[in-house]
Formats: sequence, structure tokens, C-alpha cells
Amino acid sequence: MIKQVTSLTNQTVKDIRALHMRKEREATGQFLAEGLKIIIDALDQGFAPQILVYGKDTDYHPLLKRAIDETIKSDGEVLEVTREILEKISRKDNPQMVVAVFAQIAKSLSDIDPASNDVWVALEQIRDPGNLGTIIRTADAAGIGGVILIGDCVDPFSVETVRATMGSIFALPVVKCTREAFLADRKRWTGSVVGTLLTATHNHRTAPYARPTLIVMGTEQSGLTPEIAATCDTNVKIPMKGRADSLNLSVATGIMIYAAAGL
Amino acid sequence: MIKQVTSLTNQTVKDIRALHMRKEREATGQFLAEGLKIIIDALDQGFAPQILVYGKDTDYHPLLKRAIDETIKSDGEVLEVTREILEKISRKDNPQMVVAVFAQIAKSLSDIDPASNDVWVALEQIRDPGNLGTIIRTADAAGIGGVILIGDCVDPFSVETVRATMGSIFALPVVKCTREAFLADRKRWTGSVVGTLLTATHNHRTAPYARPTLIVMGTEQSGLTPEIAATCDTNVKIPMKGRADSLNLSVATGIMIYAAAGL
Repeated sequence: MIKQVTSLTNQTVKDIRALHMRKEREATGQFLAEGLKIIIDALDQGFAPQILVYGKDTDYHPLLKRAIDETIKSDGEVLEVTREILEKISRKDNPQMVVAVFAQIAKSLSDIDPASNDVWVALEQIRDPGNLGTIIRTADAAGIGGVILIGDCVDPFSVETVRATMGSIFALPVVKCTREAFLADRKRWTGSVVGTLLTATHNHRTAPYARPTLIVMGTEQSGLTPEIAATCDTNVKIPMKGRADSLNLSVATGIMIYAAAGL
Repeated sequence: MIKQVTSLTNQTVKDIRALHMRKEREATGQFLAEGLKIIIDALDQGFAPQILVYGKDTDYHPLLKRAIDETIKSDGEVLEVTREILEKISRKDNPQMVVAVFAQIAKSLSDIDPASNDVWVALEQIRDPGNLGTIIRTADAAGIGGVILIGDCVDPFSVETVRATMGSIFALPVVKCTREAFLADRKRWTGSVVGTLLTATHNHRTAPYARPTLIVMGTEQSGLTPEIAATCDTNVKIPMKGRADSLNLSVATGIMIYAAAGL
């Protein structure tokens, strides 16, 4: 059943808008995804929205009908709303005409079997939501195992990160852990654990990439912490021979993933 | 001489604010760069601001003094302004405390000598300012020759692009040309012209990269146009073996630049 909603004070609309706050996402275990494309990507991967919201002046599209049908079939809620409500939900003047609330896929380090894929990536204290989303998208495109977030990282379920993943947030495990938990889990990584460090001398292309390989990247501002760099089997550097002495983190991670995967 | 400005109706402040518009940037040949780091990067590369603006409550920093001194020495204008003016100039609630106006470095295709570097990159109809800035940064880090913008591209001198370059906008030529001009110039590229195409079958790592190599990347949405793809010596694909069937453009370009440069 589709519910018509015209009031900004509707409780479901309020709950959805609250998902822009990390605190609310963590309390509810939900997150917001914007746009029909990512919702269809989710359905294709077996994830149905808990709540689907679309503008009442949205053009008819067979994929919207599919999203509505599958949401109802999975006991989700479907709301037809005014443009004003969509703008408030999206916090934008030109909002996507379809948005959805999904359950977060919560995985922990112990859910990961290193041997189940050749390459994995870990990010320590990544701060930028666009970088994180782009890295998840690259990881998915390259077919690697998953993404491990070490320490105080940006939320992988923020609206901006989810947007940058282009649907890949549903495709592979994204696991959060403390630095201590990562160090305790380190022994299970019996292939190569390869850190990327500006002060390293080993070229990233010729590092030993024994399987399973875990690539470890540091924060945008200052790279890996000494503790995490020290736990790597090898630290490598992507060579730079121009003026700039660093790469954007999502570009550097892309170069590392492709080097490690040998694709 | 440092001028104190407290009024938003000051003509220089109005002129600076107008540089958020592409039309104004093109009419004046100027652009805006935010933050002390990029201004010092510019000075280090021999470019002094035409106008330097800083907040009157800015903490003293020897690099700010250097920026002020070098701007005055080059007959530039220095303004000490209120926080309110900085917010208006930056269009942000938490503005950078130092911003500067620079002259655009205008180069054309004929200024480029393909033989002067091993690798160059051309981007057809790139739309996203963040992607363009990140690619200019990668090009600088890898030490390649420059970036050619084919057709209707985002402005390399937009505030957002300049920010994403992290100072690399000053480091290498960024040349705009029409598709016709590019095709006419094509014969000067006697090494390998390598296009990236989702439908190509040749792996990007094993393409012939004769020097000078020109890498050609298409637009975010739909890749290269058939005309530009057809003019390439080889079209290659970055393999994808996961679910996602495309990479972020700045990541893909980074992978291509590093593959072509053999770094």
C-alpha cells in the first residue's frame, strides 16, 4: 500500500531526515540512499528498501514500479510525497525524485575470511566521505574482498559516501574496527600486508603481493600511524617525480588495488 | 601597502566575489585560490597574487607575512578584511582566512611540445570540477607533461577545481581546445595515442606506450565520443571483475597515468 504524505511533521519523514546524522544512523542501523539507480542496484543485489519515498510528480518509470513492488513485497513502507518534502529529506534544491531507507549491513572482522579473496583493503582514519565512497566503488570494480575501516573513520553510511559508492556499498563487506582489534586480528593475514607510506623506499609495483594481500592506506593528512605501519610486512611508496608530493587518497588506493590485484 | 576593508560594497571585494562565475573568470583572465598553502605553492612556483585578502583576526604566520611581502613586491593589492567579507568571498561559514586572486596561465595546443615529456593526458568533456582538480594533481605528482581539455569541459579555474588540485594548477600546462582543434593537432602526436574505452578489449597495462604517449579519457557519463576514440592508435580498458562496471574518472585516469608512465 502506498501512503500519501504532504506534511513535514509526519513522523516517518522526520525519522528519515534524522538519518543525515551519524548518531541516528548508528542508533537505528539504517541509512539513506538517493536516486533510482542505486535503489535498483540494491534490489539487484538482494537488498530491498525498508522505506521507499518518491515525489508525486515523478515521471512514470518501469524501474520505479519495480522498486515500489519489491519494497511492498518485503513489508517495506512506500510514501508518495510532495517536492517540498523531498527537498527537506535530500537537503537540496534539486532533489533526487526517489530516495530509500535501507538497513545497514553490519559485519565485523570475524565475518571476514581472508582466504576468500586475493586482495583486501584497510583504511586507517579516513576522513573524507567522497574518498571513502570512491574507494568502495573501486574495490567493487576490481572485485576485491572488502574494505576494513581502522580507528576513527568517516561513516561509510553517510549520504555523501553512499552517493560516491554508486551502489557498491551493497556489493562488498565494509567493516569497522578499532586499531586494537585490527592489531589483534593481524595474525590471520598470512599473505602480504602492504602499507603505503610516503617515507617508504620500496616501489609499490614490485612489492611482494602474496595471497591474501591486505593493502593498508593511511589518513588523508598524515598517512599511516607508526603502529599500523610497523605491523605491515612491507611498506611501499607510489613514486612521484613531479612537484606534488602526494596523491588524492582515492586515486592512490585505486593505483594500489590495481597493482596488488595485477589486473 | 595594506588596505583595510570593512564594507561588502567595496569594489575590489565585489570583483573578487564575481570570480565564482565562469563568465567573469573568462572576462578578466583571473581566478580565485583559497588557503595559505596553495598561495605559498604558487609563490614557490613563481606566481604572485594580483590580490591577496586575509582576515584581520588571522593568527600571525611567517608564511602569511611572506605572501603579503611578495604580493606587494609584485605590485599586487593586499586587503585586510572582516570575517564577514571572507565568508562572502568564500561562500562558506568557515572560510579560509587567506584567499588570493591570480592571473590564469593561458596556454594553447601550439604551446605544447609533445616531445618535451614522455606522457600527457587529454580529457574529453570532463564535467566534474573535483575530478578535474584531482587529475591535475595526479598529473603533477607523476611528473607528466600537461593536461589537454577537449571540447566542452568544466572550467579548470573554478574555485572547486583549484581546491582539488592542491596547488598543482600552477605546476603544469592545462590547455583548452575544441574537438576540431584537437583532431587537427593529432598528427603532432607521433608516439602512442591511447584512448580508454569500456568496450575496448586491450588491457591497459599491456598497451603500446611509445613516447610521447597521450592518454585520452572520456566524459564521466558516457566515455569518449566515437570521433575521438577513432583517432586513437589503441583503445584500452581497465579490467573490472567485480559488480561495478565503471571507475570514478579521476581514479581511472590515475591508474592510466601510472600505467603509461611505468612508475
